[in-house]
Amino acid sequence: STTYRICTLPGDGIGPEIIAEAKKVLAALGEKYDVQFVCKDQLIGGAAIDATEAAGGPVSALPDATLDAARAADAVLLAAVGGPKWTDTRVGAVRPEQGLLAIRKELGLYLNLRPVRMFDALIDASTLKREVLTGVDLVIVRELTGGLYFGGHERMMGVEGAGVGGTRGEYARDILEYSEYEVDRVVRWAFDAARRRRGVVHSVDKANVLDTSRMWREVAHNVAAEYPDVTLEDMYVDNAAMQLVANPRQFDVLVTENTFGDILSDEASMLTGSLGMLASASLGDGTALYEPSHGSAPDIAGQGIANPIAQVLSVELMLRYSFGMDAAADELAAAVTRVLDEGWRTVDIADESTPADKVLGTAAMGDKIVEAL
Amino acid sequence: STTYRICTLPGDGIGPEIIAEAKKVLAALGEKYDVQFVCKDQLIGGAAIDATEAAGGPVSALPDATLDAARAADAVLLAAVGGPKWTDTRVGAVRPEQGLLAIRKELGLYLNLRPVRMFDALIDASTLKREVLTGVDLVIVRELTGGLYFGGHERMMGVEGAGVGGTRGEYARDILEYSEYEVDRVVRWAFDAARRRRGVVHSVDKANVLDTSRMWREVAHNVAAEYPDVTLEDMYVDNAAMQLVANPRQFDVLVTENTFGDILSDEASMLTGSLGMLASASLGDGTALYEPSHGSAPDIAGQGIANPIAQVLSVELMLRYSFGMDAAADELAAAVTRVLDEGWRTVDIADESTPADKVLGTAAMGDKIVEAL
Ligand SMILES: CC(C)[C@H](C(=O)O)[C@@H](O)C(=O)O
Ligand SMILES: CC(C)[C@H](C(=O)O)[C@@H](O)C(=O)O
Repeated sequence: STTYRICTLPGDGIGPEIIAEAKKVLAALGEKYDVQFVCKDQLIGGAAIDATEAAGGPVSALPDATLDAARAADAVLLAAVGGPKWTDTRVGAVRPEQGLLAIRKELGLYLNLRPVRMFDALIDASTLKREVLTGVDLVIVRELTGGLYFGGHERMMGVEGAGVGGTRGEYARDILEYSEYEVDRVVRWAFDAARRRRGVVHSVDKANVLDTSRMWREVAHNVAAEYPDVTLEDMYVDNAAMQLVANPRQFDVLVTENTFGDILSDEASMLTGSLGMLASASLGDGTALYEPSHGSAPDIAGQGIANPIAQVLSVELMLRYSFGMDAAADELAAAVTRVLDEGWRTVDIADESTPADKVLGTAAMGDKIVEAL
Repeated sequence: STTYRICTLPGDGIGPEIIAEAKKVLAALGEKYDVQFVCKDQLIGGAAIDATEAAGGPVSALPDATLDAARAADAVLLAAVGGPKWTDTRVGAVRPEQGLLAIRKELGLYLNLRPVRMFDALIDASTLKREVLTGVDLVIVRELTGGLYFGGHERMMGVEGAGVGGTRGEYARDILEYSEYEVDRVVRWAFDAARRRRGVVHSVDKANVLDTSRMWREVAHNVAAEYPDVTLEDMYVDNAAMQLVANPRQFDVLVTENTFGDILSDEASMLTGSLGMLASASLGDGTALYEPSHGSAPDIAGQGIANPIAQVLSVELMLRYSFGMDAAADELAAAVTRVLDEGWRTVDIADESTPADKVLGTAAMGDKIVEAL
């Protein structure tokens, strides 16, 4: 039987709890499809900061051992990083998020794919009206290793005239930068995806203000010329933020800069009513990385009530994009849908109409999904 | 009687149609309050580009005459700029939006204030559920002359290795920059506003990635120390994009960087169901500027069907912030509410339940508001 090595990164907060459920699901599917999934935990984020600090070595949110293990693995499964314990904003401070940004960059994962799909059973959990949501099925393709995140960051203290009243003060700068090549590869990926879907790409930029956006727009049009069967729509980012709420059904594939994608994909997640339902895949040159779209939720960590579904659905994406196991992925998606259709909920997706005995903890929800498989 | 000189900028698209209605309203209020509003039109945007081109002089989206008139006036009332006629993305091309960006910068209008308020009569026009919207009353304070808009933009052609496959290609860069001073003044303004409202400021940043955001956050906390009666909440911009949809009632005053503010304020406008209802004020060192939040809507220009309400409500903000005429401003707001409560609509805010004879054109809506005064 085939063996796949998965580098698992529990990270911080609810991370360890939800990744345990993903492992259960992997074990069940492995048996069924005669595949061996070998999971090995590594440190990232705040957990890595604490461990490297305790070991007295250089403090790091992405230790070398983790990066080496990720490089050697067939896929990386991440839970979440960050928490109130590690929010030092001072220059030079090591923050959990640096682990996430560094692993994306080091593995060359230049795009993040986030499917936004409605679960019928949860449609009323959204703050948007049912009639606006029916039939929503979109994918956000976010550039992930460039843009405003990676163009360089700088803070200067005691700059003449930068403070209040022209006194000495602080000054800071972040750079948004792209080469044509970086834009081309992610836009091209979006066009390929659209070809397999409904054939529409919305390229989102701020071309009326930014030079990177004007270049982005030209590259998108050059790529579009090679895809006569796909329709390209340019859209300003402010308008896209509006259209995602006003008429989300118009979107098929949306492709955009790193920061714009960060903002728009979190906004789009609200269509589904809960961030606890969405997974993402980070793809590119190196080992692909899969993670839930939500954060580490430190406020509910350790209580056994976190929703493991987004983590489980990140396994679905892994099966599809890293292992080509589409049948298993379809089966897993169907199992999650079935569990929801039967009325099972975690507390974040329950409402007044949910009977108390239908509200499950993290582990019980994981078991239900395994049962449904 | 007092005289106020208003520099009116009709701009492009539906601009001339809607600004005409604002002038009607000003005339009516002037009579009632024994004030003389003297309006004088100037060129901006695409209209200015065309005129300066026809005159054979240097092409400009903000001619000197316009800037001089704006400087000399007591307030500037802008409609909207832009359109498909002027979308040349080439380096060096003059674009209508440059007129808007330049007038903000030249007049030192370092903050843009956008109130988001619900009209009961229109609450069902939103794609969000009524129960989420009831009681929403928030103000977005957007930094307007710094950030990613004004840190410098650059495009380089034929850069070694920037093209596909490492060939010569393009490279572009935009800079997000702030001095402590620029952040301080806008954050301070937000705190002052919150003090007169419900006492809560959400400072929105991306401090887990950007150095400008880390500095922004520190400045916000320093300012907060001077306002013990106001609560400061830090929020990441991706989370803010989510929270505006999930639970908009939590916000009172939201303050943020230029680009983040551009995106979030357009998103927030969707709470009201139509961009046709929101106005904004740009305030700072020089003559204040008032404008609707929507664009020039070239697709419906010249048809007499555009909604003039946002333009009329920008007059309300002008009365309040430039002329201290709060009673007149309140009366104008009440008149608009009354017209809507009576069921009058323009086509963009009408729905299936609107009787055909309640749907008004641009001029008729302006007349109705004047009547209600
Ligand atoms: C944690 C943070 C640095 C990260 C990002 O902004 O990329 C997160 O918001 C995400 O979207 O994966
Ligand atoms: C037209 C454009 C340059 C402008 C901006 O982005 O500032 C507009 O979107 C706005 O919000 O006033």
